[in-house]
Formats: sequence, C-alpha cells, structure tokens
Amino acid sequence: MYIPTLADMLIAHERIKPYIHRTPVLTSTYLNELTGAELFFKCENFQKAGAFKVRGASNAVFGLDEETASKGVATHSSGNHALSLAYAAGRRGIPCHVVMPRTAPQAKKDAVRGYGGIITECEPSTSSREAVFAEVQAETGAEFVHPYNDPRVIAGQGTCSKELMEQVEGLDAVVAPIGGGGMVSGTCLTLSNLAPHVEIYAAEPEQADDAYRSFKAGHIIADDAPQTVADGLKVPLKELTWHFVSNHVTDILTASDPEIVDAMKLTWQRMKTVMEPSSAVPLATILKNKDKFAGKRVGVIVTGGNVDLDKLPWIKA
Amino acid sequence: MYIPTLADMLIAHERIKPYIHRTPVLTSTYLNELTGAELFFKCENFQKAGAFKVRGASNAVFGLDEETASKGVATHSSGNHALSLAYAAGRRGIPCHVVMPRTAPQAKKDAVRGYGGIITECEPSTSSREAVFAEVQAETGAEFVHPYNDPRVIAGQGTCSKELMEQVEGLDAVVAPIGGGGMVSGTCLTLSNLAPHVEIYAAEPEQADDAYRSFKAGHIIADDAPQTVADGLKVPLKELTWHFVSNHVTDILTASDPEIVDAMKLTWQRMKTVMEPSSAVPLATILKNKDKFAGKRVGVIVTGGNVDLDKLPWIKA
Repeated sequence: MYIPTLADMLIAHERIKPYIHRTPVLTSTYLNELTGAELFFKCENFQKAGAFKVRGASNAVFGLDEETASKGVATHSSGNHALSLAYAAGRRGIPCHVVMPRTAPQAKKDAVRGYGGIITECEPSTSSREAVFAEVQAETGAEFVHPYNDPRVIAGQGTCSKELMEQVEGLDAVVAPIGGGGMVSGTCLTLSNLAPHVEIYAAEPEQADDAYRSFKAGHIIADDAPQTVADGLKVPLKELTWHFVSNHVTDILTASDPEIVDAMKLTWQRMKTVMEPSSAVPLATILKNKDKFAGKRVGVIVTGGNVDLDKLPWIKA
Repeated sequence: MYIPTLADMLIAHERIKPYIHRTPVLTSTYLNELTGAELFFKCENFQKAGAFKVRGASNAVFGLDEETASKGVATHSSGNHALSLAYAAGRRGIPCHVVMPRTAPQAKKDAVRGYGGIITECEPSTSSREAVFAEVQAETGAEFVHPYNDPRVIAGQGTCSKELMEQVEGLDAVVAPIGGGGMVSGTCLTLSNLAPHVEIYAAEPEQADDAYRSFKAGHIIADDAPQTVADGLKVPLKELTWHFVSNHVTDILTASDPEIVDAMKLTWQRMKTVMEPSSAVPLATILKNKDKFAGKRVGVIVTGGNVDLDKLPWIKA
C-alpha cells in the first residue's frame, strides 16, 4: 500500500491546475451568528463538473503514461467521481467507463453521458457494484481509478485544503464530509504536513455512520447499502483512507437526515448556493456541536452541487 | 423632477460601501458554449439582503439628515426593496414601514420582519398598494423611499454597473431585468457616462411587458396587476425611470414564463447559484436572441436570490 506524500499533493496541484477552478471561499454573517463560529465555506460546488472529485480524477488521468492512457480509465461511483473522471478523460481525449447504481439520480447519469462517459448500471449495493465493475474492467483493459482508495486520488483531493489555507489565514479547524474518506484523507495529508495544529473533523450521516463506528472501534466496519439523503456518502472506508482517518482525524461527528436537509435548505436560503445533501453534513454537525466550534475559525468543505432539482428533499412529491 | 447625475452615483458608492458586498462576477463555460457569447454574471443574489436593491435603499437611508431619519422610512414593494430598506434602516437604527401585497411569498414577508421591518398588507395591485401606502405614510410621517422612481435609489443601483466595469474589461453589452426600471436606470446612468459605447438591453417577461410596449410606443403604458413567474418585475415604469429607459436603452427583449423558468433552472444546475425568476429573464432573452449577442462580451445582472424554496416554479405541487 503506497501512502501518498506531501510531494505527491504538491505535484498534483501543478498537474491539475489547467483543468480545475481555484474555487472561492464564501462567508455568511447570518450563519456565523447562528453558530458562534467564523465559517469559511470552500465552494467546490462551483468546481468543474460540480464537485471536488475532479481534483483527484484529473490527477489520476493526467499522470498516466501514454500507453496506459490509450486504453482509457474505468471506475465505479455513486456519482460525482464518475462525472469528474469522465470530464478529465474527455479533456485528455481518452475513454472513460463508469459503473453506476441504477438508482443514481438521473441528473448524474445524464451529466456523465454529457461528458462522454460510458455507463454500465449495477444494483445499489457495494457488492453488486464491485462485481459488475470487475467484468467491465476485464473487457476493456482500462485503468482502474478508485473513487477514493487510490493514492493519486487522495493526493488530488488534498489540493483543496492547500488552496483553503492560502485563502484563509489562521484556521483552527476544518470540517469535511466523510463517505469513503477521499476528501478527508486528502485534507489529512495536506494539513498534517502544512498545518498540524489545525483540527480535522469528519462529518457523517447517522444513517451511514460506518466511519464513525470504525473510528470508535479502531478498525474498518463496512455497511452494505445504507440509506441516507446524503447519497454521496454511502460508501465504506478502505485501507488507504482508513490510514489517514485513524491517524489524523480529530473526531467524527454525525447528523440525522432531517438535520442534514435543514442545513442544506439553510445554505440555499442564506448563501444562495446550490449544494448537494452530502455537502450540508458539515454545517449540520457544526449546528449540533456549537460548543466545539464557538469562537473558532472553521473551514467547511462544500464538496459538490450536483442535485436533481426535480427531487429536492424538503419538497414532498 | 431631479435627474440623478454621475456625481450622485459616485457619492452613493462611497456612502454605501460599508453596508454592501462587492459581489463576485461568475462565468460558465457551458453557458458560453450554449449562447455563443461570453457571459459575465454580476451576482447580486449574493448581495446583502439577497438583492441589488440594498444599494439604492442604503443610499437613500444613509443620505437622510438626522431629523428626517428619526421618523423612519416607508415604502411599498413587491419584496426585495422592502427587505433592503428594512436592512438599511436596521443598520442606521431607524424604523422601516413596508406595504406589501398579501400574496407576496411568505419567505419575503418573514425576511422583512427578520430585518425588523413593520409590514402592512395590501391587495396585489398597483392601485391598492399605493392607496394603503398613503395611509401608512400619513400616520407615521416616515420618509418615502420609492422602490425605483427616486433619484437616490437610481444613483445607488448605478453602483452595480460601476463595479461590473471594474471587474470585467471590454464589455460590449449589459443585460438587466426590467420591472419598474430602477436597475436599468442606474445602469443607464453609469454606462452612458462612463462607457457610452456599451449597449444596454432591458429584459422583460412577456406577461408583464409594459416597458416593452412603452418603449415601442414612446410613452409610458402601465398594466394593473400583471401575472408572471418573475414576481419582482410586475411594476410599471414611472417618470424618472422612463427618462433613462427612453434615452439610453438599446432595446427591450422579452421572454415567456416557460422560457424564464427554463433559464432559471439552467443556472441553478450549471452555475450552482440560487437566483430568483426575475434574475433569469436576461439569460432567457439572450438564449432567444443569440444573433444579437454572439461573439460579444456581455454583462448579465443577476438581480437577486430571494426565492421561496418550498415553491419552485418547475416543481408541480
């Protein structure tokens, strides 16, 4: 198991700069008053392909040698990694094969195809996803880029916190959502090297709290097919992300689905930004744990903005 | 009738700077490809109180002498001017009386009260609004700040285009929504003085096209109680805004309600920003008139982001 280093993250940032946005950091007087903290929202919902995952995907795609690249890339993903890998592969002009749950939001499927991705559907469980993927990879010979358990991907995601540190001085803590742990691992990689005093909190849905339970137990506990509104966060930790989470995360905080939806709606109302449910989990946990964050300067990673606008979680169909 | 000058606009900008955001300009590769133009979205949906109207309202409130200010301010408004005047009055610590249609979105009423505004409701017609307002003003002695037919307000709105010119070089045209004409008049005031070669387009809902018909007829034509999804744009031109529109606007373009809703949803999907229906009218007209804008650098004023998130126009209840 290769553990990505600070050098890998710095090289990744130079490599991917032509293909990503340096996303803005937004603040809200209202949310600061509500939480008692100073919140700095790193808006990866404005990122290319609508999510931070384009950082790791671009680093993987543009780091391939010509021969490997020519066979294309392949992945399984609950959505944003698929979009991002299709985007990056398109920029390099190579094929991208994607295995997606048939239950993934239609908007995400359309967007993957919009970027030129080739989709094969599977059942909405981790086990089905991995089985179908093995078939696709065997047929195409494409390079597997795992959504998060991949050192190239983690090094790429780490560039987000690097920018955040450059954009905001004197951060005391960073809160990022955790599903498989790619963003949190990248955050750990960057902050443990460049700003080891900054606390790192992972925010997780109660209804998919395998990372929380893993963290408390001291070893990986995986769910199969958990259900939560934060559909980007249903996947389990793997060896590489467990390494970063177990060594560098300060704590894992959870929020219920109704709390996540309330936080999501609040940011739409007050910050006028479209963020997906997964991205609202950090704010939901901050609102539940005001004592932990009061008086602190807190970076909040808004991971993505890819939402099916026809099915908003606070509107009953 | 006092016509505000370039000097009034420049003084306004200095006066209101402590109370407003210098809002960002966003771009979208996707929307550029779709329209064939280079679009620069001036995002007043991120403005204080969620709309550009805080510029004019703040200029009016902070320009009052102490004695006048002590009696407070009053207005009638379809929403955002009310919010903005309440915000500005709150910052100065004076009362703000607001006459609003009883049919205005609940979110807007709640927000006005949230900023400390005192609401009196009227029927959803221009005639009822003006009658109820006269009563309120007689009782309180508060200074009337008209939502748009007021030189202080127009000078304040003109600061938006000034910032846009500072943020984007070489603009060929600016497109702004038109209801009563406050934003368009401020745009005319600023551009006719500072960049007279820049074309100024006003964008209006077909279902409330009184400005379009006035422009073609050469005199003000007012509707009573038009109905459109772009609820900020239902009000008629008045003398002062007619002065600017008739002298400086290049053309007025219209879009249907379905076209406005499509453009609104498109910006939420692609730019991940929450904008209200009125703010989507410029993009809707650009999409309908690609020939006029192809190859040009076009400023698009996104006027506000105050939306009732429980009643989105593309979701059937």
